[in-house]
Amino acid sequence: MKKILLSGFEPFGNLDTNPTTAIISRAEDWDIEGINLETMILPVVYNECASRLIEKIELFKPDIVLSLGVAVGRSAITPERIGINIQDTAGEGKTGDNRGDQPRDRFINDGGPDGLFSTLPVRGIAELLVSEGIPAQISNTAGTYICNNTLYSVLDYINRENLDTKAGFIHVPASPDMVRKQPQMPSMAIDIQEKAIKHILEFLSKND
Amino acid sequence: MKKILLSGFEPFGNLDTNPTTAIISRAEDWDIEGINLETMILPVVYNECASRLIEKIELFKPDIVLSLGVAVGRSAITPERIGINIQDTAGEGKTGDNRGDQPRDRFINDGGPDGLFSTLPVRGIAELLVSEGIPAQISNTAGTYICNNTLYSVLDYINRENLDTKAGFIHVPASPDMVRKQPQMPSMAIDIQEKAIKHILEFLSKND
Amino acid sequence: MKKILLSGFEPFGNLDTNPTTAIISRAEDWDIEGINLETMILPVVYNECASRLIEKIELFKPDIVLSLGVAVGRSAITPERIGINIQDTAGEGKTGDNRGDQPRDRFINDGGPDGLFSTLPVRGIAELLVSEGIPAQISNTAGTYICNNTLYSVLDYINRENLDTKAGFIHVPASPDMVRKQPQMPSMAIDIQEKAIKHILEFLSKND
Amino acid sequence: MKKILLSGFEPFGNLDTNPTTAIISRAEDWDIEGINLETMILPVVYNECASRLIEKIELFKPDIVLSLGVAVGRSAITPERIGINIQDTAGEGKTGDNRGDQPRDRFINDGGPDGLFSTLPVRGIAELLVSEGIPAQISNTAGTYICNNTLYSVLDYINRENLDTKAGFIHVPASPDMVRKQPQMPSMAIDIQEKAIKHILEFLSKND
Repeated sequence: MKKILLSGFEPFGNLDTNPTTAIISRAEDWDIEGINLETMILPVVYNECASRLIEKIELFKPDIVLSLGVAVGRSAITPERIGINIQDTAGEGKTGDNRGDQPRDRFINDGGPDGLFSTLPVRGIAELLVSEGIPAQISNTAGTYICNNTLYSVLDYINRENLDTKAGFIHVPASPDMVRKQPQMPSMAIDIQEKAIKHILEFLSKND
Repeated sequence: MKKILLSGFEPFGNLDTNPTTAIISRAEDWDIEGINLETMILPVVYNECASRLIEKIELFKPDIVLSLGVAVGRSAITPERIGINIQDTAGEGKTGDNRGDQPRDRFINDGGPDGLFSTLPVRGIAELLVSEGIPAQISNTAGTYICNNTLYSVLDYINRENLDTKAGFIHVPASPDMVRKQPQMPSMAIDIQEKAIKHILEFLSKND
Repeated sequence: MKKILLSGFEPFGNLDTNPTTAIISRAEDWDIEGINLETMILPVVYNECASRLIEKIELFKPDIVLSLGVAVGRSAITPERIGINIQDTAGEGKTGDNRGDQPRDRFINDGGPDGLFSTLPVRGIAELLVSEGIPAQISNTAGTYICNNTLYSVLDYINRENLDTKAGFIHVPASPDMVRKQPQMPSMAIDIQEKAIKHILEFLSKND
Repeated sequence: MKKILLSGFEPFGNLDTNPTTAIISRAEDWDIEGINLETMILPVVYNECASRLIEKIELFKPDIVLSLGVAVGRSAITPERIGINIQDTAGEGKTGDNRGDQPRDRFINDGGPDGLFSTLPVRGIAELLVSEGIPAQISNTAGTYICNNTLYSVLDYINRENLDTKAGFIHVPASPDMVRKQPQMPSMAIDIQEKAIKHILEFLSKND
């Protein structure tokens, strides 16, 4: 029995939905053989997102932590290869987190390593999805916003505590309704996103 | 009872699927109140696509002709505003039709009007879909390939014959499996495409 | 001696520059053999842009009218194939013209033809630029804003008056400074844009 | 007097030019006050690009190493924030390096750190260019090809040798002639690229 902790995020910015909230809600009804699944929704706040996830890791002691976030503008499911030690919202259109925090080039962990690789099998995840007809690709940047912050912080915590826990992050596209008035923006149906994440959990439960 | 003729296309280029083939196949099972629906698959051949459709119009005498085609690279459902009197495959990556015909700047109807507006309510169609949470937008170009050829030819035929038939064209995005190895390419789930086209038919049957 | 009328536009929207204003300003210093060149800047106003250009045509009686406009988001020089009989600012982000006029699906000339092809050699123009190392491509839509309005109106006027004048429209990319804070947006140096338009005028003066 | 080593690359893939080769060639004629400039062209070969650069560092003992590479598809000058410990050509369209080496998920330095931040002032560089009217932005991924390989290897070497040398990498867009037949692809004039790199060197010579 693999213990898996699956997290999503609350909506952020000027959006009123987040596909990862919907996936987490659906995941509560999944019953996957060989998996003891725990789910949670994280706040889109730099100095809370990771601490909440880490508290849950300490209680649940999962074998695997998989965090999900939305990347508006991407068209494929993208497992992230690396988290980097930076918080930055200086890019075009970024308005800070849900508390208004707008860091520029701020370290997540002053003195921590510059980057930390995901310990999930990102190549296997991408290939699995493509073989199921779902667009997928390894991403080499999780950005510098809350998603990267969560990925880096969890990997850094696991390293510092010397845990066996594997951890990683997957970005999903916007859902169609999020971009219904932005017709140039790619999206992916929630049904397909759900199918992808379910396949990934089955794969992770057997892998190792 | 509105008589509607709905057409899709066979696969083309180096693709082995076409979402409009799938939609047409599903449409055969639809039972929409107030609609007498006839469906057909057109060949991706400049000098056949329109003649086949026109033969069917002469037999079925539809009130409305709605043709569907895939536009790889688009992320939204796009009703086309206009068909133009040109056949051209000179653009990057175009390899000609399924018979190898590669016209450059060739008139569809030498002496015909330069452009012909769709006679379907393209604004209403786009707004309907957006209100249903499906990305949609009027497109101002159907290109110069088979899709535009079909749209222009049918509108030109209807004009010359002085028919009351309304006609138009809708481009749909690639399906996810078509682009599973091109992760930068947007796509839309067939389930959502089917839902969109079904909504449009219901709308057209009540309209006017 | 070919008489050529070359027009650009004033800045519009929230932009304070327009590369076509700069090109027109530079064009005043050009001395091209075989060309009698007249230049002008048009207002970004639906119900003035074309009438100003037509007034000048009546005075100057050019052999060729070439209008330039900027298409933010395009990366190549794009001669337009067709102007269409519509004024529409309903698309995402459109805020109306410089007088606040925000038409939706309004005819330019009620009763006029749906579309009118440019009478300039668009294929030759695109091929010429590519051979000079400048990205270029025929465009099949000039949109539904002021640029299309100008193109359609001039072609429609020439048709109604039965003139021999050739007319067309070329969209140029944003200049680098316009998008310096939108780093995902393509641009083209004014020097290259100037070189392109100069080449095109030389080509047009020898052509036909 | 700051000693600066500036590198570019030879052409690669199916391209016959590389804007960084042109910039290096022009840089040989620059005479910038306060800078002792050394230039070189690197081979697009995983197991040679960095060793050649490192040999030159050992001879020239620069204060600053700035490497340039082209990122086809980007429209802005992008200083890279981080190099990561991976060589991977599995992405769409990658055909391996100029010797045919096609690594998948291979470490650059087995046992080396996962990521290493550039030690150049990437924020200052991006802001400087924007203030000069040149599109620029920090990039959070240098990819997994030769460019990232060079950046990571040099930073890793400097760390291991405990040198004071600062090092970093800047991606430039394609030049217009490279994409003249791919009109959807953004580009930047070599004159503007040259101006940008010259500004950056002046900035680096005064900085710190």
